[in-house]
Amino acid sequence: MTRAPNMPPPIEEPWPAVCLVRPQMGENIGAVARVMLNFGLTGLRLMAPRDRWPNPKAQAVAVGADRVLDAARVDWKLEDALADATLVVAATARPRGMEKPVWGPREAAEKLRAAIAVGERPVVMFGPEAAGLETEEVARAEAILTLPVNPGFASLNLAQTVAVFAFAYAEARQGADAPAWFHGGDSPPATYEELENMFLHLESELERGRFFHPLDKAPLMKRNLRTIFLRARLTQQEAQTMRGVIKALTIGRGGRKRED
Amino acid sequence: MTRAPNMPPPIEEPWPAVCLVRPQMGENIGAVARVMLNFGLTGLRLMAPRDRWPNPKAQAVAVGADRVLDAARVDWKLEDALADATLVVAATARPRGMEKPVWGPREAAEKLRAAIAVGERPVVMFGPEAAGLETEEVARAEAILTLPVNPGFASLNLAQTVAVFAFAYAEARQGADAPAWFHGGDSPPATYEELENMFLHLESELERGRFFHPLDKAPLMKRNLRTIFLRARLTQQEAQTMRGVIKALTIGRGGRKRED
Repeated sequence: MTRAPNMPPPIEEPWPAVCLVRPQMGENIGAVARVMLNFGLTGLRLMAPRDRWPNPKAQAVAVGADRVLDAARVDWKLEDALADATLVVAATARPRGMEKPVWGPREAAEKLRAAIAVGERPVVMFGPEAAGLETEEVARAEAILTLPVNPGFASLNLAQTVAVFAFAYAEARQGADAPAWFHGGDSPPATYEELENMFLHLESELERGRFFHPLDKAPLMKRNLRTIFLRARLTQQEAQTMRGVIKALTIGRGGRKRED
Repeated sequence: MTRAPNMPPPIEEPWPAVCLVRPQMGENIGAVARVMLNFGLTGLRLMAPRDRWPNPKAQAVAVGADRVLDAARVDWKLEDALADATLVVAATARPRGMEKPVWGPREAAEKLRAAIAVGERPVVMFGPEAAGLETEEVARAEAILTLPVNPGFASLNLAQTVAVFAFAYAEARQGADAPAWFHGGDSPPATYEELENMFLHLESELERGRFFHPLDKAPLMKRNLRTIFLRARLTQQEAQTMRGVIKALTIGRGGRKRED
């Protein structure tokens, strides 16, 4: 996906922060940094990464998100990594016997967005690749983030988990506005009259081509043809194009001279 | 994330299918297979993968999703990869100058879910790592899937893009009533192949009518024509009707004899 024209300015928000707890593979750390920045998040924390930091493998995978890696905080105790947080969320499958709110990505995103709006500093913890967060770590969180995974194959890649969360957060940032429908203003929609003229042109040429038979079916056939083009919601430009199509298809045919 | 107790049975759904167009890195193909199965999708298609297939690097990354890889269809032409599809969606940044519906992941998920409920076979295309889908490839789609990325850093990893889509789809699966899309079942939707044959018929007749001039504009003009009919989402019956329309409009014209 490349940058489209007329897009708004870059988004770089430090909250919610993403805290990777005991991450193992540099590649995953790099992929997390990249997808965080893809969705406008920049606050990365590493709690006790397995390998030496900075990690060249992370750099290689982060592509253009080096600055997220460079600014990443490294801590060796979870208390330190979470010290300034006002709200901690743990990404994990729903744990038994812990009475905490359990949020899906969308719900979590909305809660966090609301919290940030009133000055909170939320941190979302993600556990290590193989084992996930330990019960003691989950216990530190105010809430659980859980993903609607296939019960038959629930083991998500670390960076994919962060991707889903970061996406849901970006969606919450946009608010309720769905992406605009297609009449982007490149060409205004055709008017009823323009469409009607196009239909009449098409129908008269089809009559010359003996398309409407048996004759008593003609009204139904015309209606069905209109349905196709109405559904397409033609622009002005497209309605003109269709007039050109009809002309080009009928040019040079012998019928007109005989019938006129 | 590990499997929690009392979870419902595994989810494995063949539609929507995911079609990776000219994918380059085996690791990404494996990561796509894994995250598809994480969210209950199993229909993977590879159009002209760069490296030899099967690809050991893909196997290594797919972890437990080998069966998605093993069942992956490989095609060398996009027409073949899409032949049986009744609805094609292209994942790309919003293209200028193409009048197609543009959907966010959630909206796409809801539309596709509704389409599948009435018997459609949707395929979502994702382009190669570096460059994304080409304009000609996007032109084949009925709709665009676009992600709410940071305009300052929009380049998403391929597997992350699929992850976000597959997650949104899983969420829609859980969700209640998706808004119905329009194929009410009166006639089944036209397949990609049926539409393609209709387009080729129309284009060849338009060429005889000297519609495409100047000649260097022909690809753009063809794309715009396809856009109109793709947007209308023709049924099988309607695609046949359009074939009849083209025949009726071109019948009796003198061109064929001179040129044949």
